[in-house]
Amino acid sequence: MTDFHAVIPAGGAGTRLWPLSRAQRPKFLLDLTGDGRSLIQQTWDRLVRVIPADHIHVVSGPAHAPLIQEQLPELTNLYAEPAPRDSMAAIGMAAAIIRQRDPNAVIGSFAADQTIADTEAFVAAVQEAKQVADTGLICTLGITPRGPSTAFGYIEAGAPLSGTASARAIARFVEKPDLPTAETYVAGGSHYWNAGMFITRADVLLGHLERLHPDLYTGLAAIGQAWDTSKRQTVLESTWPGLTKIAIDHAIAEPVSLEGGMGVVSGDFGWDDIGDFAALGELAETIDDGSGDTILIDSDGLAIADDGTVIAVIGVPNAVVVRTRDALLVTTREHAQRVKEVPEALKQRGRTDLV
Amino acid sequence: MTDFHAVIPAGGAGTRLWPLSRAQRPKFLLDLTGDGRSLIQQTWDRLVRVIPADHIHVVSGPAHAPLIQEQLPELTNLYAEPAPRDSMAAIGMAAAIIRQRDPNAVIGSFAADQTIADTEAFVAAVQEAKQVADTGLICTLGITPRGPSTAFGYIEAGAPLSGTASARAIARFVEKPDLPTAETYVAGGSHYWNAGMFITRADVLLGHLERLHPDLYTGLAAIGQAWDTSKRQTVLESTWPGLTKIAIDHAIAEPVSLEGGMGVVSGDFGWDDIGDFAALGELAETIDDGSGDTILIDSDGLAIADDGTVIAVIGVPNAVVVRTRDALLVTTREHAQRVKEVPEALKQRGRTDLV
Repeated sequence: MTDFHAVIPAGGAGTRLWPLSRAQRPKFLLDLTGDGRSLIQQTWDRLVRVIPADHIHVVSGPAHAPLIQEQLPELTNLYAEPAPRDSMAAIGMAAAIIRQRDPNAVIGSFAADQTIADTEAFVAAVQEAKQVADTGLICTLGITPRGPSTAFGYIEAGAPLSGTASARAIARFVEKPDLPTAETYVAGGSHYWNAGMFITRADVLLGHLERLHPDLYTGLAAIGQAWDTSKRQTVLESTWPGLTKIAIDHAIAEPVSLEGGMGVVSGDFGWDDIGDFAALGELAETIDDGSGDTILIDSDGLAIADDGTVIAVIGVPNAVVVRTRDALLVTTREHAQRVKEVPEALKQRGRTDLV
Repeated sequence: MTDFHAVIPAGGAGTRLWPLSRAQRPKFLLDLTGDGRSLIQQTWDRLVRVIPADHIHVVSGPAHAPLIQEQLPELTNLYAEPAPRDSMAAIGMAAAIIRQRDPNAVIGSFAADQTIADTEAFVAAVQEAKQVADTGLICTLGITPRGPSTAFGYIEAGAPLSGTASARAIARFVEKPDLPTAETYVAGGSHYWNAGMFITRADVLLGHLERLHPDLYTGLAAIGQAWDTSKRQTVLESTWPGLTKIAIDHAIAEPVSLEGGMGVVSGDFGWDDIGDFAALGELAETIDDGSGDTILIDSDGLAIADDGTVIAVIGVPNAVVVRTRDALLVTTREHAQRVKEVPEALKQRGRTDLV
């Protein structure tokens, strides 16, 4: 698969995982699952099963580039965005650079901060999605719902795509539903969680972009042409600030799906985006593991001390307790989504050192 | 009042205040109220209003003697018990030493780990209790109940003592009651919390002891006679291990009260024994003081970080969160009494370093 490239947009602060996740050391740089590899390292480990290391491209903010390079020493294509311009600009820039080098390239875009337990199934799905992309469709990986989650957008699958093992056309993308709607989705069996993974020929993606967002296309194409020349910095600095901020879902996936231009390969993969501490609690072991680091009395839940200190919890069911060197979070799983309010409050108090 | 002496038995680990209170640095050595003075220093500050500094005697375990001396540099009478033998031996030894030096001495025994907000009222009550003690009674200070607490023993007052401003005889001592009983005590107006403060002539106390516990008396009298001689260490080492372990309440107060030998001076004094974090929470300010150290979202309660780190609490009413350098406690006020189970569990896990 020498024409296959991966793009990893490494953004997102993960403020619902404060105080573990910080602006300077966001979620994707953390070893949240405790197996010795950060989320972006795990993403790398999965992708090199399918894609050569020198075909993997990471787009990040300049502040995170040094730590990413440190964590991924084999990474040769690290692109620092001058400023955040949302996912369409990040993925589109990489696509433009890659197309300039290889007009036949197929790119897969994979988030930097997700976990996948079943790598074999994931690899097989990516390979099938690549075949779908070769035909000129944009193919996503859809996650078979484990329950009626209201935290994700859904992909509504349509008719099977002929000539593929399991892929289906995408009828449409739907926003995060309310619970009754989510329940009908799960019962119906034709809806998948949208994990934001897209596999597409670079020229197909950029062709859609040229048609749907011509100004954005023009800027990104200019950057792509200049990237491997002496004009890279000049063009980047003159072009980037004017680029439209838009997510790839709104810019491409939603309109193209309605035109019949998208397909989906579905599976479970043991996928999780670890969106909050409730999700992390499901992945992590229960806290009373007998190691002597946690004492639970009439309590259960998640207790993390990144400095290894003892945590004692009494009478707090579904506890979420996260201690770092400089901060402490105490809440319950029911309130896990509200953790993002803490860094907001800290900013208001001028404690940007803790955000 | 040159014949007036104070005895401060400084014992008790305060395990319900873990992780602030530790075996090596127990409750009485801590500045729990945040005003810059530990509880034993506050006790000292109150007593020197009534009693000369060189008439104040502290009985402690040998492990705590150096820190006590450091906190109380003016203290000249610090007695280290070879091993814990409960409050009768501690107070009785001090009484025997003091009687040997001053046969007419009156001693007041005051716990090392209580707080009193109204020092003026306390001083006035101690002075009245001294007058009662001069007549040959053992006088206590009874705390006017602020509510039907089931955490304290009660003093049942009897007839007024003639010739005193407000003192009454003690009818009897009663153990910690159940809630309905405590409610009748509070409604009746003749019951007071037993704060363990006794004011008595040394010869009266030791006379009761000689009559009620002759073996214990003999041992303590021998220590008292030897203390200011070269035989101190020899007698202490040979005598102390054989002394009966008994609380002064059981040894003296309960039987003598039934004989009509005790009186009580009552008052509120803003007294508290800070028995657990629920009590400390009532004394301390609420945690969201705007200092930037605590962020409360749908929460209230007590949050202490002795290393000054930020604590964020979401959705935990009546929270109790206590962070030290090496440990963390998370519970609620409703479970404050159960905190003592944590050091017990730590001992079982061999983590005596944290107890």
